[in-house]
Amino acid sequence: GFANLDIHRAKRTGFPEVIYGEGKTTEQVVKIFESLSKKNSTVLATRVTEEMGYQVLKRLPKVHYNKTARTLLWKKNPEPIHTGYIAVVCAGTSDLPVAEEAVTTVQAMGSIAELICDVGVAGLHRLIDKINLIKNANVIIVVAGMEGALPSVIAGLVDKPVIAVPTSVGYGANFKGLSALLGMLNSCANGISVVNIDNGFGAGYQAGLINKLMNPTVKEKNKL
Amino acid sequence: GFANLDIHRAKRTGFPEVIYGEGKTTEQVVKIFESLSKKNSTVLATRVTEEMGYQVLKRLPKVHYNKTARTLLWKKNPEPIHTGYIAVVCAGTSDLPVAEEAVTTVQAMGSIAELICDVGVAGLHRLIDKINLIKNANVIIVVAGMEGALPSVIAGLVDKPVIAVPTSVGYGANFKGLSALLGMLNSCANGISVVNIDNGFGAGYQAGLINKLMNPTVKEKNKL
Amino acid sequence: GFANLDIHRAKRTGFPEVIYGEGKTTEQVVKIFESLSKKNSTVLATRVTEEMGYQVLKRLPKVHYNKTARTLLWKKNPEPIHTGYIAVVCAGTSDLPVAEEAVTTVQAMGSIAELICDVGVAGLHRLIDKINLIKNANVIIVVAGMEGALPSVIAGLVDKPVIAVPTSVGYGANFKGLSALLGMLNSCANGISVVNIDNGFGAGYQAGLINKLMNPTVKEKNKL
Amino acid sequence: GFANLDIHRAKRTGFPEVIYGEGKTTEQVVKIFESLSKKNSTVLATRVTEEMGYQVLKRLPKVHYNKTARTLLWKKNPEPIHTGYIAVVCAGTSDLPVAEEAVTTVQAMGSIAELICDVGVAGLHRLIDKINLIKNANVIIVVAGMEGALPSVIAGLVDKPVIAVPTSVGYGANFKGLSALLGMLNSCANGISVVNIDNGFGAGYQAGLINKLMNPTVKEKNKL
Amino acid sequence: GFANLDIHRAKRTGFPEVIYGEGKTTEQVVKIFESLSKKNSTVLATRVTEEMGYQVLKRLPKVHYNKTARTLLWKKNPEPIHTGYIAVVCAGTSDLPVAEEAVTTVQAMGSIAELICDVGVAGLHRLIDKINLIKNANVIIVVAGMEGALPSVIAGLVDKPVIAVPTSVGYGANFKGLSALLGMLNSCANGISVVNIDNGFGAGYQAGLINKLMNPTVKEKNKL
Amino acid sequence: GFANLDIHRAKRTGFPEVIYGEGKTTEQVVKIFESLSKKNSTVLATRVTEEMGYQVLKRLPKVHYNKTARTLLWKKNPEPIHTGYIAVVCAGTSDLPVAEEAVTTVQAMGSIAELICDVGVAGLHRLIDKINLIKNANVIIVVAGMEGALPSVIAGLVDKPVIAVPTSVGYGANFKGLSALLGMLNSCANGISVVNIDNGFGAGYQAGLINKLMNPTVKEKNKL
Amino acid sequence: GFANLDIHRAKRTGFPEVIYGEGKTTEQVVKIFESLSKKNSTVLATRVTEEMGYQVLKRLPKVHYNKTARTLLWKKNPEPIHTGYIAVVCAGTSDLPVAEEAVTTVQAMGSIAELICDVGVAGLHRLIDKINLIKNANVIIVVAGMEGALPSVIAGLVDKPVIAVPTSVGYGANFKGLSALLGMLNSCANGISVVNIDNGFGAGYQAGLINKLMNPTVKEKNKL
Amino acid sequence: GFANLDIHRAKRTGFPEVIYGEGKTTEQVVKIFESLSKKNSTVLATRVTEEMGYQVLKRLPKVHYNKTARTLLWKKNPEPIHTGYIAVVCAGTSDLPVAEEAVTTVQAMGSIAELICDVGVAGLHRLIDKINLIKNANVIIVVAGMEGALPSVIAGLVDKPVIAVPTSVGYGANFKGLSALLGMLNSCANGISVVNIDNGFGAGYQAGLINKLMNPTVKEKNKL
Ligand SMILES: Nc1ncnc2c1ncn2[C@@H]1O[C@H](COP(=O)(O)O)[C@@H](O)[C@H]1O
Ligand SMILES: Nc1ncnc2c1ncn2[C@@H]1O[C@H](COP(=O)(O)O)[C@@H](O)[C@H]1O
Ligand SMILES: Nc1ncnc2c1ncn2[C@@H]1O[C@H](COP(=O)(O)O)[C@@H](O)[C@H]1O
Ligand SMILES: Nc1ncnc2c1ncn2[C@@H]1O[C@H](COP(=O)(O)O)[C@@H](O)[C@H]1O
Ligand SMILES: [Mg+2]
Ligand SMILES: [Mg+2]
Ligand SMILES: [Mg+2]
Ligand SMILES: [Mg+2]
Ligand SMILES: [Mg+2]
Ligand SMILES: [Mg+2]
Ligand SMILES: [Mg+2]
Ligand SMILES: [Mg+2]
Repeated sequence: GFANLDIHRAKRTGFPEVIYGEGKTTEQVVKIFESLSKKNSTVLATRVTEEMGYQVLKRLPKVHYNKTARTLLWKKNPEPIHTGYIAVVCAGTSDLPVAEEAVTTVQAMGSIAELICDVGVAGLHRLIDKINLIKNANVIIVVAGMEGALPSVIAGLVDKPVIAVPTSVGYGANFKGLSALLGMLNSCANGISVVNIDNGFGAGYQAGLINKLMNPTVKEKNKL
Repeated sequence: GFANLDIHRAKRTGFPEVIYGEGKTTEQVVKIFESLSKKNSTVLATRVTEEMGYQVLKRLPKVHYNKTARTLLWKKNPEPIHTGYIAVVCAGTSDLPVAEEAVTTVQAMGSIAELICDVGVAGLHRLIDKINLIKNANVIIVVAGMEGALPSVIAGLVDKPVIAVPTSVGYGANFKGLSALLGMLNSCANGISVVNIDNGFGAGYQAGLINKLMNPTVKEKNKL
Repeated sequence: GFANLDIHRAKRTGFPEVIYGEGKTTEQVVKIFESLSKKNSTVLATRVTEEMGYQVLKRLPKVHYNKTARTLLWKKNPEPIHTGYIAVVCAGTSDLPVAEEAVTTVQAMGSIAELICDVGVAGLHRLIDKINLIKNANVIIVVAGMEGALPSVIAGLVDKPVIAVPTSVGYGANFKGLSALLGMLNSCANGISVVNIDNGFGAGYQAGLINKLMNPTVKEKNKL
Repeated sequence: GFANLDIHRAKRTGFPEVIYGEGKTTEQVVKIFESLSKKNSTVLATRVTEEMGYQVLKRLPKVHYNKTARTLLWKKNPEPIHTGYIAVVCAGTSDLPVAEEAVTTVQAMGSIAELICDVGVAGLHRLIDKINLIKNANVIIVVAGMEGALPSVIAGLVDKPVIAVPTSVGYGANFKGLSALLGMLNSCANGISVVNIDNGFGAGYQAGLINKLMNPTVKEKNKL
Repeated sequence: GFANLDIHRAKRTGFPEVIYGEGKTTEQVVKIFESLSKKNSTVLATRVTEEMGYQVLKRLPKVHYNKTARTLLWKKNPEPIHTGYIAVVCAGTSDLPVAEEAVTTVQAMGSIAELICDVGVAGLHRLIDKINLIKNANVIIVVAGMEGALPSVIAGLVDKPVIAVPTSVGYGANFKGLSALLGMLNSCANGISVVNIDNGFGAGYQAGLINKLMNPTVKEKNKL
Repeated sequence: GFANLDIHRAKRTGFPEVIYGEGKTTEQVVKIFESLSKKNSTVLATRVTEEMGYQVLKRLPKVHYNKTARTLLWKKNPEPIHTGYIAVVCAGTSDLPVAEEAVTTVQAMGSIAELICDVGVAGLHRLIDKINLIKNANVIIVVAGMEGALPSVIAGLVDKPVIAVPTSVGYGANFKGLSALLGMLNSCANGISVVNIDNGFGAGYQAGLINKLMNPTVKEKNKL
Repeated sequence: GFANLDIHRAKRTGFPEVIYGEGKTTEQVVKIFESLSKKNSTVLATRVTEEMGYQVLKRLPKVHYNKTARTLLWKKNPEPIHTGYIAVVCAGTSDLPVAEEAVTTVQAMGSIAELICDVGVAGLHRLIDKINLIKNANVIIVVAGMEGALPSVIAGLVDKPVIAVPTSVGYGANFKGLSALLGMLNSCANGISVVNIDNGFGAGYQAGLINKLMNPTVKEKNKL
Repeated sequence: GFANLDIHRAKRTGFPEVIYGEGKTTEQVVKIFESLSKKNSTVLATRVTEEMGYQVLKRLPKVHYNKTARTLLWKKNPEPIHTGYIAVVCAGTSDLPVAEEAVTTVQAMGSIAELICDVGVAGLHRLIDKINLIKNANVIIVVAGMEGALPSVIAGLVDKPVIAVPTSVGYGANFKGLSALLGMLNSCANGISVVNIDNGFGAGYQAGLINKLMNPTVKEKNKL
């Protein structure tokens, strides 16, 4: 058929294939979601439309649908299995959907996410107020649009890896996220790596992987 | 000949034509410098080579040649004539030539410049240490390469206009200053305007013009 | 909640946080507008939809809604508090929305704005007719799309700072305002700095800040 | 051999093949120049190095070598054969090599060129001083770097076709002539067409062709 | 009001101001069209919507509305006043709207246009069939999208100026006309100059100007 | 009329002109399809809308309309006439429309296509499972979006020419297919050439041409 | 060590690993060349400096060094083993190095190459003179810089696959070969696929592969 | 002076300020290196010239200078202090300098680096041979130029975080590393984040930070 599922992915990479809703029909998403939920103990879908959300919920009422994040998550065992937490820091209100996509992905991977909103660099004190919550995370995801300066400021204040997510928030010479992307790639601070524009999922995945590495002895029954 | 000097410029715009050294021969620069020094009481040349610097100095020993800034400045009356000062803040050591070009231009226009170096956002405390010197300036020029985040952070802390100068310092996805330029144009902070990449002169000029506006009653004999 | 308002911003930067309507729901804008109008004596919102305009007007009838500018402005004390005026010069009819955004912002900051329309460089005499009104301003905002040549011509005729605003007006190799942006950044005239494409707000803010600097002794009761 | 000369070009297009020096060896240029001078009554080479200039001069002393323009021109009958003249207007001193390439090409095609230098838009009066010389030309070539605004201003003042040549003069966000090129393509004035960055030859050729069209009855013996 | 008409334009440049419909309301276009038709003997509007077309036709039934070209043209004296003709050659069927905009503009300027369609370089014989009609024109406008190769081929076969118009026809790496634009600017053939992407108006205007130059003695009563 | 059909194309290039639906009206497509079906024994239309599909089917019920591929194909003799087959390999489900356009084109040209779906490089074993089917093809078309890495991996494993088709599938720094296009052009593997973004037709055509070359002796009666 | 040779490549892909000289030291190239010449019966190196050429020749005098092509080729059995030939057509003299790289690669792969020079589209008759030589080839490589129009014209005249190679020849808006690359990717003619800018090797390889496919029964002793 | 060292950085971020050699004089680098070696127990300099290397070695003979990596490293306690290792995988020989910069940085941060060279995707078996060494690492750095496909392939085979480093290796449409950068940002595999083009240091730093997180109980005396 149209899809050739990568069923051994969980074995190889530690996490099963994730459904990317963009460009799929509602029927395709529903069908793949159901089929994966039979094979794996965690199923995550991103970039889903409201229609997809409601159709999946109708069939699988235990699925968690997050409208802002545009995600669908189903976990046999919904509890976090890794200690420590991942901070998801977001510069402005409009960056929220991308930040929430990161949060859901972190949870899908068995870690706890702390969301810290609207702490852009134009009002540093808002960031300073939250700095301890940020510093004590195991990994820090920083989501920002426009000039994308927040990861540089944060990475200069902490000793943890920062995963930077540029967003397409802005206009004009922002060129749909290019300004934030270039800003993050050229950061003068150390300890930053970058994912694609608006790719909250990718950042959540990388952060979840790192936090898992720090939790080597998860008990068998809790596994993803 | 090759040049058609704009001799009424000082009358129209308040400052005489400035010599742009790039793409001119040493002979042309020397000749134009001498000829302008007969007509005006201030002569400024930017982007001059060392050779140009020494040849002009040989003929006009009172000229001030700044090797880092690549500028030549001659003023009949070298004293500043405007009160208050302009802060020239620079993110890294490599941004210094551009910052010094701004400093010389500010001085050429009769204002005092305070240079504050190496206070990039990756070490915020260095900036905080100097924040009062910055806040008390009439205008703030911020020179930064790489991600160009410094103007955003500063503009969020002050109530003065910030003139941002992106530099070509960096490599790779910096694309010769594009990342800093886009970062500055898309700043989430208010009160920032931007000049061309590496254009310390343009920033110094704009800042000098603003500071002059705040000093309406310069005495006739002190005029530029 | 979704927003972490920067309530000390007025103290730090001289002007309270401005609401950016793009990407917010009508409900969010109404709520933030009302809440800010309790804390500050001036509230400005930009990039608001007609729906936002009418909903805010219904609740706060004294607010000034400008449909062309897409702005909402409420001022306890609507009188200008700074002397002198800011010229907002605009090249073509289609640049008007951006120019009006600049005008509203200038007014929000307590200055007077003079709008001068449709004086593009293809008909120089139209500009010459208005040149005195432009020359006598304290700051000049120049709004232009297409090749963005107007700031160069004006800056060569005046001794005041020019804030240039490229617009996305044009087509083809205009690349949504890139041609005007690059033109303005590379101007051969002195005394120009540039803000983002279509950023009338940013230009108005910077100009308002500069004019305020020239008016040091505003009486306490008139303050923003 | 390495070259397959287009010997019927003069018949088809009214002008013989022109030698483009870039990327050729001195030997190749000398050889092609000599061989073309036997077949045609006009030979033009552009983008020649000094070495090429001297080697061709040694063999063919009647050739005219222009070091600034980097051109070599030999004409059996050096007199202009078309009435009227072509104005070659140039914004700054650094645009001169491109302007001179246009001048030589115009002459090669049998027309008279009037060169008008250093009349950039930042000092409009310099342009106004020359406006009659410009207006009375049959065709106007305008050479400008940086923001490339000069063609817009001129085209608004004349009723003749303007051929605009962007140059790579400038730095930073000039991106090697891109800013001038985009500016000229997006001009708000009418009657402008554009050639490649630094392509003085192309502009001279197009202008020469147009002026020839206006001179239909050149006597046989004067022909190119 | 919103528009500051350039009423002396016809005197300065030989043709009155043209109405650019894009970004104007139907009301504005109708109003300006009527007002210009009282002052000038030719009125041209481009980029008009169907709505604009019908509204203007209702009020001024003698106006010629061309739906494909998106133009409105009214001429007191509709006859061509210049001898010779301008060939408008177009590579593919989808380039037709741009080609027709050029045709209307040529007619507005008093010249005759010959439209030659669908002669793209992939089927050279179609071009060869029409080559005499093309060669005998006074000026040749070539409209092409995709790789924009047609002007190079034509300019190599004729001794008349070619005005090349890149169109946005194509997809993928066409980047909305960039491929055709760059192709035309870099042509290896001589005698080509280029206007903006999709700018049929600009090409028609330049061609009309050139043809007018070749017709110096138009009788007074026939003038535009 | 609007179209100047290239009726000798089949003779010159071995395949008749193909109808490109984009930017044509349904009426035009129906009319051209009918008219070509009278002259040629194969008619192919690409980029057709559903409306076009149904209108052509109504008139010519033997036509094959492929909704995913957006193609219409009519062949007098529907059997493949060339031996061997062309593999059409596609990285993800969303690349399917482009892959199917290639399949239809291959069939139109008389060859057999084998479609192999969803074998992206993130799950190599899926590719390995199909490697023999791929290796035994005469030509391999590889369709991929995002980073476009699949052609590199395949070309390193086979001794057949690979035609790579970048797709616009992806978001953010994908820039509408640019990332896949650049990836394919810069492949470190040998034996790859590339067509335009989303140009399944172009790849199918090139592959069909190559396979035909390998089948020199098609019997007269089977010819396209 | 520094290199991990892919010794099974000849078995997998039909041709052994090729040495890419760029960024390697002369010592590395000499060493790898010698070592490969012991394992394989054909060794090809591209992008070699003159120094590399002479050092390899000193040790292995039977190697063929092509200075223009910057290639080194050694074949145990230097005779072509495939019937038919590959046409390598090149637009201008400056495209020759890239064309010669293609020629050497074709020869390395056991096919005959026919080089056809300086037949750019500005003088079509030069192309027409050679059209039969081009038409009778099995595969056609077309090398062109500037606007890259030659492949479109040729593909419209032949029924063989065209491999297009854009070159970096040109200046200004050529952007180092981008104009030719985009032109070729957007060709309106069918049967063209494209390789990287200046990648004569890639085109020669692809063409060699196709010609080999048409020669299925090469005798064992002649194999590469 | 010219530098304002960030002396508390080690306390804040766990690693002292690193010296970036580019754009500094040899004197400046020597001076800063000596001064930092008095304050910290690890000093790292990157992008150093040979001259800088020798001058620092002369004064501080225990420093380790790596000519390929262009790094200088001095560690009081040269032993690794973290368990596990970081794989540095590199696609081609020319990517080595960037890979070695990553290796040195990993070592500076107290971790062990395993370098795996020349395993590009065009010869998959070379990668498969090393897959266990790669899989067992704690973090994987993947360095690749050209199309940058290697991180996608590796990330699909492992359950560890992959830090991807695009290099500027390649030519033409590689645009100095842009193709590899975009490829990596758009990877279809999960668990990848990206640093700037040629930024081996940034990748090494991020990987070192992650490995340190997994080694929480380093004994006091071993600390950096
Ligand atoms: N038109 C505008 N263009 C750019 N920035 C704006 C504009 N209007 C408001 N802003 C900025 O946006 C900030 C609010 O962003 P947010 O937190 O997303 O509501 C304000 O503090 C302003 O600095
Ligand atoms: N400066 C120039 N810029 C662009 N094209 C030129 C220039 N000079 C000569 N040419 C063109 O280059 C062609 C010669 O190219 P080639 O065959 O490489 O020598 C001439 O026929 C002219 O059309
Ligand atoms: N299709 C067109 N493309 C580019 N410019 C045009 C076009 N039609 C009219 N114009 C120009 O637009 C000007 C009017 O602009 P505006 O003042 O905004 O109405 C006219 O004077 C023409 O120079
Ligand atoms: N999907 C496609 N992508 C690119 N070119 C196509 C496609 N389908 C058809 N064509 C080409 O478009 C030409 C017809 O263009 P037109 O004359 O505008 O109808 C055909 O001869 C084909 O070469
Ligand atoms: Mg906010
Ligand atoms: Mg520093
Ligand atoms: Mg107007
Ligand atoms: Mg000058
Ligand atoms: Mg057609
Ligand atoms: Mg899949
Ligand atoms: Mg030639
Ligand atoms: Mg290798």
